[in-house]
Amino acid sequence: MKGILLFGHGARNPEWAQPFHRIRDAILAREPEALVEPGFLELTRPSFDEGVDCLVRQGATKIVVVPIFMAAGSHVKKDLPQMAANAMDRHAGLVISLAAPVGEAEPVLAAMADYALSVDPDDEGAER
Amino acid sequence: MKGILLFGHGARNPEWAQPFHRIRDAILAREPEALVEPGFLELTRPSFDEGVDCLVRQGATKIVVVPIFMAAGSHVKKDLPQMAANAMDRHAGLVISLAAPVGEAEPVLAAMADYALSVDPDDEGAER
Repeated sequence: MKGILLFGHGARNPEWAQPFHRIRDAILAREPEALVEPGFLELTRPSFDEGVDCLVRQGATKIVVVPIFMAAGSHVKKDLPQMAANAMDRHAGLVISLAAPVGEAEPVLAAMADYALSVDPDDEGAER
Repeated sequence: MKGILLFGHGARNPEWAQPFHRIRDAILAREPEALVEPGFLELTRPSFDEGVDCLVRQGATKIVVVPIFMAAGSHVKKDLPQMAANAMDRHAGLVISLAAPVGEAEPVLAAMADYALSVDPDDEGAER
């Protein structure tokens, strides 16, 4: 069974993880049976390992890691493959694949472009 | 005249900035007359200040800064307002507004959810 790990950087402020939970909710709204968990590099829980373990406990045998990063910097290119290799060592039979970061997906960039154009500098929403 | 600054973190690898140029291209494809430039916190050029100066040279009098970040961590909450204040001090009459990060925009999260669901672990695109 396939699982999806939403891989993020992590930050000191716990609210920072909010968008990751909203992506998870959006995935579950589309596919209620999906196995999907966040997993962070540092500072924010669950960690990458905790996210993987949680998916495995739910029955995942193949995990696709989706980096919620704009581009593949050293966290995606170096840290992530190492963490994935360690997780496969820990779970016999588990296969982990690494997807391209969301920032390389055209529809994601298009949504960001639409959003940037929609912001009105005179809106109250915009802060000084 | 309104300008858009796409604010990113920056990274050592120059290719990391690619998605920012693609967002800029997508904005220009929608609004060919738009004034839009990237500007980075660190490591990647143009810097935030260079991006602002470039927009001002093109005639921008109001700049909306769109943080290309998943959420408002300390770079967006602390560094950015300070940089924006400094830029307004540097340019008399310039007004800078700060938008919410792209990761708080529902359609952006929806596009990420769609992307995550579209990744096939057996695809060649996915790497181990």
